[in-house]
Amino acid sequence: MSAPQIPTTQKGVIFYENGGELQYKDIPVPKPKSNELLINVKYSGVCHTDLHAWKGDWPLPNKLPLVGGHEGAGVVVAMGENVKNWKIGDYAGIKWLNGSCMNCEYCELSNESNCAQADLSGYTHDGSFQQYATADAVQAARIPAGTDLSQVAPILCAGVTVYKALKSAHLKAGQWVAISGACGGLGSLCIQYATAMGYRVLGIDGGAEKEEMFKKLGGEVFIDFTKTKDIVAEVIKATNGGAHGTINVSVSEAAISSSTQYCRPNGTVVLVGMPSGAQCKSDVFNHVVKSISIVGSYVGNRADTREALDFFTRGLVKSPIKIAPLSDLPEIFEKMEKGQIVGRYVVDTSK
Amino acid sequence: MSAPQIPTTQKGVIFYENGGELQYKDIPVPKPKSNELLINVKYSGVCHTDLHAWKGDWPLPNKLPLVGGHEGAGVVVAMGENVKNWKIGDYAGIKWLNGSCMNCEYCELSNESNCAQADLSGYTHDGSFQQYATADAVQAARIPAGTDLSQVAPILCAGVTVYKALKSAHLKAGQWVAISGACGGLGSLCIQYATAMGYRVLGIDGGAEKEEMFKKLGGEVFIDFTKTKDIVAEVIKATNGGAHGTINVSVSEAAISSSTQYCRPNGTVVLVGMPSGAQCKSDVFNHVVKSISIVGSYVGNRADTREALDFFTRGLVKSPIKIAPLSDLPEIFEKMEKGQIVGRYVVDTSK
Amino acid sequence: MSAPQIPTTQKGVIFYENGGELQYKDIPVPKPKSNELLINVKYSGVCHTDLHAWKGDWPLPNKLPLVGGHEGAGVVVAMGENVKNWKIGDYAGIKWLNGSCMNCEYCELSNESNCAQADLSGYTHDGSFQQYATADAVQAARIPAGTDLSQVAPILCAGVTVYKALKSAHLKAGQWVAISGACGGLGSLCIQYATAMGYRVLGIDGGAEKEEMFKKLGGEVFIDFTKTKDIVAEVIKATNGGAHGTINVSVSEAAISSSTQYCRPNGTVVLVGMPSGAQCKSDVFNHVVKSISIVGSYVGNRADTREALDFFTRGLVKSPIKIAPLSDLPEIFEKMEKGQIVGRYVVDTSK
Amino acid sequence: MSAPQIPTTQKGVIFYENGGELQYKDIPVPKPKSNELLINVKYSGVCHTDLHAWKGDWPLPNKLPLVGGHEGAGVVVAMGENVKNWKIGDYAGIKWLNGSCMNCEYCELSNESNCAQADLSGYTHDGSFQQYATADAVQAARIPAGTDLSQVAPILCAGVTVYKALKSAHLKAGQWVAISGACGGLGSLCIQYATAMGYRVLGIDGGAEKEEMFKKLGGEVFIDFTKTKDIVAEVIKATNGGAHGTINVSVSEAAISSSTQYCRPNGTVVLVGMPSGAQCKSDVFNHVVKSISIVGSYVGNRADTREALDFFTRGLVKSPIKIAPLSDLPEIFEKMEKGQIVGRYVVDTSK
Repeated sequence: MSAPQIPTTQKGVIFYENGGELQYKDIPVPKPKSNELLINVKYSGVCHTDLHAWKGDWPLPNKLPLVGGHEGAGVVVAMGENVKNWKIGDYAGIKWLNGSCMNCEYCELSNESNCAQADLSGYTHDGSFQQYATADAVQAARIPAGTDLSQVAPILCAGVTVYKALKSAHLKAGQWVAISGACGGLGSLCIQYATAMGYRVLGIDGGAEKEEMFKKLGGEVFIDFTKTKDIVAEVIKATNGGAHGTINVSVSEAAISSSTQYCRPNGTVVLVGMPSGAQCKSDVFNHVVKSISIVGSYVGNRADTREALDFFTRGLVKSPIKIAPLSDLPEIFEKMEKGQIVGRYVVDTSK
Repeated sequence: MSAPQIPTTQKGVIFYENGGELQYKDIPVPKPKSNELLINVKYSGVCHTDLHAWKGDWPLPNKLPLVGGHEGAGVVVAMGENVKNWKIGDYAGIKWLNGSCMNCEYCELSNESNCAQADLSGYTHDGSFQQYATADAVQAARIPAGTDLSQVAPILCAGVTVYKALKSAHLKAGQWVAISGACGGLGSLCIQYATAMGYRVLGIDGGAEKEEMFKKLGGEVFIDFTKTKDIVAEVIKATNGGAHGTINVSVSEAAISSSTQYCRPNGTVVLVGMPSGAQCKSDVFNHVVKSISIVGSYVGNRADTREALDFFTRGLVKSPIKIAPLSDLPEIFEKMEKGQIVGRYVVDTSK
Repeated sequence: MSAPQIPTTQKGVIFYENGGELQYKDIPVPKPKSNELLINVKYSGVCHTDLHAWKGDWPLPNKLPLVGGHEGAGVVVAMGENVKNWKIGDYAGIKWLNGSCMNCEYCELSNESNCAQADLSGYTHDGSFQQYATADAVQAARIPAGTDLSQVAPILCAGVTVYKALKSAHLKAGQWVAISGACGGLGSLCIQYATAMGYRVLGIDGGAEKEEMFKKLGGEVFIDFTKTKDIVAEVIKATNGGAHGTINVSVSEAAISSSTQYCRPNGTVVLVGMPSGAQCKSDVFNHVVKSISIVGSYVGNRADTREALDFFTRGLVKSPIKIAPLSDLPEIFEKMEKGQIVGRYVVDTSK
Repeated sequence: MSAPQIPTTQKGVIFYENGGELQYKDIPVPKPKSNELLINVKYSGVCHTDLHAWKGDWPLPNKLPLVGGHEGAGVVVAMGENVKNWKIGDYAGIKWLNGSCMNCEYCELSNESNCAQADLSGYTHDGSFQQYATADAVQAARIPAGTDLSQVAPILCAGVTVYKALKSAHLKAGQWVAISGACGGLGSLCIQYATAMGYRVLGIDGGAEKEEMFKKLGGEVFIDFTKTKDIVAEVIKATNGGAHGTINVSVSEAAISSSTQYCRPNGTVVLVGMPSGAQCKSDVFNHVVKSISIVGSYVGNRADTREALDFFTRGLVKSPIKIAPLSDLPEIFEKMEKGQIVGRYVVDTSK
């Protein structure tokens, strides 16, 4: 394959201060370092984390100015001289963890996301809301040839995140997993991964439309919080003793506390969202007598990413997306802030 | 061995209502059921749980009238006709979990303490504050011949509990375990078990006398909360990144929250005490980004008991006890309620 | 429910010496001990182990005279006075492990099959080739009301065995499991359990008919040993690096050695059959460099049984049986010895 | 620290064909690549693997000409431009795994030694039998300042190898580990690591001198194969049921088979040496009925190395070495081939 033409400028969405204007404009195409790929991003998912990066409301400083985005799917167009196992034309994914030191105690055990020097796409490293982005070749995701790059984009963060959360619950096939907030962007992927992993899925969300969607995606028992008086009692009854695991996709404090109550003895409650300032509260007596675990699950590592992509590639997980032009990103952020988004937006960087 | 003489009445401490008078008096000797041992209790440890049983302040109903006590060490003097693998004269221990159904999903996986039909010594079953007590032969602890029955008594609950808590932290030899409340009855056993398991031990408690005791028992780093301004920072510094595991022997809400902050990424916080009404609070952002686990550890099962006793028998764990007559139990409870007890009281049932 | 009429004699198949005549005749109905159920066996599966019991070719002494059988499905008609959590009319299953001591180090950790005092149905305890059999109430399998008792019979040993073997391979959903001997009685259940657990299934067996059956049951890649020159190379290629786990349902020594060669690095080879005198051989260099494990999986415990039955009850596993009268058992043994059986025979004790 | 003077030539031991002359002579100092350290090797351990590399008798091709050695301890004197977290003057160790691709499925999960592109010091990459050697900065071992570089050398392979083997046995503190070949170079380190990890150690070796050494290093039960008729029975008796884990440091086929026989039910046999052409044989019936595992343990990863070094640095493991000049390497190889070495040779590269 002949080397593609790489322009010197490109379109991207950039902001210069937290909460400042999101500008869609011409910016320079970055140059890959010796260990990096240059990826021609075709599509990028839009995640709640992008909103936090822009607002700057997390206790973690971000780069400024910043090009956000960390669910970018595209094609390798150039690479540094030390890159191994990649070639021009390969499909590659940009994910939240762009790179890490690779020799601290966390990296050594494949927990790179806990590395103190972790470099984060769309946060400390310019991300996928641009046409050309750089990515560390060791961390970049391998996407099989022939994959639909718009569909796969949300798998790179949302998919990997719920898949990792499910793994963190340490369930066996045949056990019950409750998904609190089952029908949002993360939840709808979570239902599908859980089903593919052999779990029985109980979803908690509100409304008949959501119930229908839940059942279509493979869910077994739906609990409608708009109709149910005692969610804890209902979950315990439906699962014949409590959920073996719960994935708290919903970030409500009350929902989290509730999940510690309907948790089966010896079961696991997984926290996965990161609302600023929220507390996880559990009753110590219940926590001890039932011997439950409350586990934080951050983002997946390289292996989680490979596996999550594999479920997608095998057709076991579908990604219900809406495609919009990259130039619409400011409006998408606005809707997201107002909680008006159902499903996942993916931006097309060519528009 | 000729069958021992078993009297029909004995001395015991009994109460007729929660918080009512603790009467040291003559009561009938119980008869073992077909699956039970009759144990001539020589010594019994006194545990905080006995205070809760008497006061009735847990959300778990107890038997009335009740003979408390669940750390009883003695000798088998009779047994029911279906008992296997025991003989008259064997040393046996009475522990918190007296019996369970053995065929629910919890019992099947050796989590008998989570059995809905769990029968609890000194709570739903008359316990070890009497000279003769019955115990389910399957659950009763095997104590090797020649063991000092006064010393071993606290191992049967306090020892097993901290040993199980340490196991629940899933540490590797060479990792740091912090013990919050390191020098109380549970803590002082926890230091020794942790050392025997190959962990490095950091203790948090107050005062120079406690520091000395801590070091004598094998502890490596002591943090004196009466002198330290920022416990979280100190623990992180001393352990070069945070404790891999923390055993919250202290039941203070503030100490528990603090332990989630000095927890190393991917580490584990263990809850082991059961204060009525207390909450475990953790910051969701910290919980998720550091990917930590908060685990409730209740009481050990039969295997945990066997193993905890084995460490004791091998001389790796010593039990710092004060022996008092059984008839002094009311005063011991009084001191315990006022927090005036250092170490562990063991009552001699013959006095 | 009024207590059923229990006769004093019944039909059963009994032998008086190993390899001696299998007599279908009137024998006494046994009386349940205090911890036992009396089960009116309706159907019983016929397993290779029954043949070993009859021939006496295992290094494990059996009871004589003996009524064999350990896949019995029936109805509780009586019970001893210490039995808990069962009632007359419940469906109950007789399985290989009839009972164990419940207080040795193996029983304590739910590894009852490793108990030195294990009592085995159809081996050291009269089994299910009779109309009325006794079973330890703690170990007897709970079969949900409404279950087809003929279909469920083989699940009680064959199903539990392959399910346990799959668990012993410690696979994650999405990984490859190879089944060596995929289309026999055990293999055909193994394919279905593996699929329900989210694994990708590769089967090794011979012939187009078997390939068709394999695909119908959910298998993904079939390797026909009658057509393939290099099975090791084929498995590695089809699984893109080797099977993460292999279940050796086939008991051929060559097949076992082969499975250590096509095992993926860090993968697991599971041994499940028990041919008398066979050796498992693996090349040490390969074993070490690839860091593989060879794991023996015996029979499931109570939890494995409950779970295996649950997959069946949920309709995820079907049991391809042929029903025959109990009186035909001698002919079935003959066919089994000649290797002429495809699928699983179930005998109807009423005929 | 001012940059050290780096010569252009140095002393080293090199061979040009497998089994050819081992030449101690002047060779060029290598230049570090962008990801590499240049280490001034002070001391290097001599390992059996070095003999295999020279003889070329493994089914794994080596580089030619070759400078062997993979237990090198020294000082960083230069580094490539992409190296992170290292500085001139740091102590660094050269270990068997010099580098790997970092983005295959094995590297992703910290199993770099299983990487198909693994680069091996003293095998596919010139090693530590020279004064200046290059090492991948991500894999090079971090040795704390102040460490005795001669003592630490054998930890870098022998220490890490036995530590990893012990971890592969998945033991709990208080369980029995048998070390078959307890008093050789690997065994003597294994005894100490096992003790530091809280295990009870049984050693099998021959002779009173070895027994004395075994006890001095912390071993509990010694079985002298020159005096014991039935090793299997002795081990089972001494451990009250069999070893929970066995580390086969000895590479004898008979010893390995024996270890499968004295293995406790549910226990683990670890293979760690790599004799060319040897077979591991186990009786299938025993393997299955006892539900044992036979696990291959290759070399440690970065985390295992860090941990193994930490036990050494804390003084819990001592390394019984003999120091010889690098120029004596040919004679050391000769002795090794004749099995005349007790303990571990370390060569001083300055002589």
